[in-house]
Amino acid sequence: MRVAELGEFRLISKLADLVAARSDNRIPACADLLIGIGDDTAAWTSKPGIELITTDVLVEDIHFRLGHASWSDLGWKSIAINISDIYAMGGRPEYALVSLALPGSHDVINVIEMYRGMIDICNQYGIALIGGNISACEKIVINITLTGTALNRIMTRTAAKPGDLIAVIGYPGISAAALAALKMNVSLSQRALKLFNAAHLHPIPPLDSGPLLVACGVRAAIDISDGLLSDLGHICEASGVSATLYEQNLPVHPLLKRYFKQDYLKLVLTGGEDYKLLFTAGRSAIDKAAKCIKPAPTIIGEIASGKRGKITVRDRYGKQVKLDYRGWDHFRWAPAHG
Amino acid sequence: MRVAELGEFRLISKLADLVAARSDNRIPACADLLIGIGDDTAAWTSKPGIELITTDVLVEDIHFRLGHASWSDLGWKSIAINISDIYAMGGRPEYALVSLALPGSHDVINVIEMYRGMIDICNQYGIALIGGNISACEKIVINITLTGTALNRIMTRTAAKPGDLIAVIGYPGISAAALAALKMNVSLSQRALKLFNAAHLHPIPPLDSGPLLVACGVRAAIDISDGLLSDLGHICEASGVSATLYEQNLPVHPLLKRYFKQDYLKLVLTGGEDYKLLFTAGRSAIDKAAKCIKPAPTIIGEIASGKRGKITVRDRYGKQVKLDYRGWDHFRWAPAHG
Repeated sequence: MRVAELGEFRLISKLADLVAARSDNRIPACADLLIGIGDDTAAWTSKPGIELITTDVLVEDIHFRLGHASWSDLGWKSIAINISDIYAMGGRPEYALVSLALPGSHDVINVIEMYRGMIDICNQYGIALIGGNISACEKIVINITLTGTALNRIMTRTAAKPGDLIAVIGYPGISAAALAALKMNVSLSQRALKLFNAAHLHPIPPLDSGPLLVACGVRAAIDISDGLLSDLGHICEASGVSATLYEQNLPVHPLLKRYFKQDYLKLVLTGGEDYKLLFTAGRSAIDKAAKCIKPAPTIIGEIASGKRGKITVRDRYGKQVKLDYRGWDHFRWAPAHG
Repeated sequence: MRVAELGEFRLISKLADLVAARSDNRIPACADLLIGIGDDTAAWTSKPGIELITTDVLVEDIHFRLGHASWSDLGWKSIAINISDIYAMGGRPEYALVSLALPGSHDVINVIEMYRGMIDICNQYGIALIGGNISACEKIVINITLTGTALNRIMTRTAAKPGDLIAVIGYPGISAAALAALKMNVSLSQRALKLFNAAHLHPIPPLDSGPLLVACGVRAAIDISDGLLSDLGHICEASGVSATLYEQNLPVHPLLKRYFKQDYLKLVLTGGEDYKLLFTAGRSAIDKAAKCIKPAPTIIGEIASGKRGKITVRDRYGKQVKLDYRGWDHFRWAPAHG
């Protein structure tokens, strides 16, 4: 049955039933929930502390194409990209709202699959899905709002200090690799294709990485959504500092190196959509983080004073690597709208 | 300059400057704000109480057409429709996030005009605009998330009780009248056109109506976004009750009656997008509300037990008015997607 045949209210009611049936009610956020799906707003009992809120969107033909991404993965990813932002502040995610716009011609079963993906990730990360909104639109637009809480400290983009080391969690660049292979006509092995597609379509923010970093004493972080250079640039701009990256320290996945012999560095530095954290801190905080976060962070450079926002990449001989790229801009790189 | 030429990050920076320059920093929500626009999430110090959250969207060619709505009014309305939801729960709005998707071909000045409209309404209703997200999309999609707080009590859709009176604030139906006139080829006076257009393009939720209703003892409310019958139906369904409306008690704006002699009742009952509150309560709570809320609520019917969700409209002779309509459904009435 198509969405238009079922109608807005019956669809919402179906989705509310699905959320009620499949959500894990043992997660802490549920204990404080007063009103979930089905009223003018959601409501919960708030406690003293720090409240975090973020919103991020997946737009059809900009962030994804149907036929490439499954509906379930779309649901998963739409929440994952927001978890990553809450983690970047050092918080724990709590409540999610889904604002979905889509053509009425889509099958209801697809929307249900999308919600299954959302509920799966919510259960794994301790999030209660508490409301939202459904509207018609010519393109699919999945807008998620996610709240989170932090106890007393958060991480910010403004807290990087000269002398801080720069570290990153995971392998940057692999999320962009599948599309890059397609564009550059690179033939991938099944194993590489699976790895790159999984990173892009079903990103997995390292569980609790944000709160763990805060607990280790880290004060400056960002998630790599626009690309390593671009996001490190955001930290440097906000903190009024510069940065140097050491090429030989960058974590390069072996499969990325194998299939992109000429371009792996560009992918690592600008790939984007990695949804893992980049942070800056003193050596002792990073050593602590290495013991409690999986995958362990890799130190890739250091923060200095100097020209605000400037990033230098140096090769193993200390020579500056010339770069003619930076990272993702929705409008500059957007197909058909640029 | 076009959005695509300026680029995502410079646009965000421009909008952040605008928000900083024009926002009223004396509003209470600003005092608790820790992080506004410019980091991975916004953050504020939370206090004990009830936290409310809602999200609602305006989609191009579904909710509005460019050329009819000004960019400034779009910005205003996108926030207004969410204020209305926070009021419907009895809360005060606090923090807004804007997730905007639009083609890069639009002029930057239009986006700035839209933000001016948003900032205007935020200042008037005590809201801090604290973040969001901008993305490319083939259509303009303005998704707003609004939080609010309530002290100890809220209003819900589930709290209507048999014996409650039903009341409404303002004139339902006038928001839908301009479009109805166009469709039905009704020629309007300038005065009528101005009134109907203003109601549709620049809705004004009666200031503090939500918190005032709660203070008067009202426990069941909803905002009229889908149409009076449809939204009263939501209350009746959620509360497990039925309702009777008295035709002669319905507030009908004189200009609506003048220009829609045959159809004003249909507009009042199903028009939608009024963004004023409908509520149910005992006589004493409604009498109190009449003294402190402007415009004063009108009693239009009463709640009874009986078939869950059933609504009967009776004329001045007590005779049941036959209705072949109910209200707005995004997919059933959506142009080109139904």
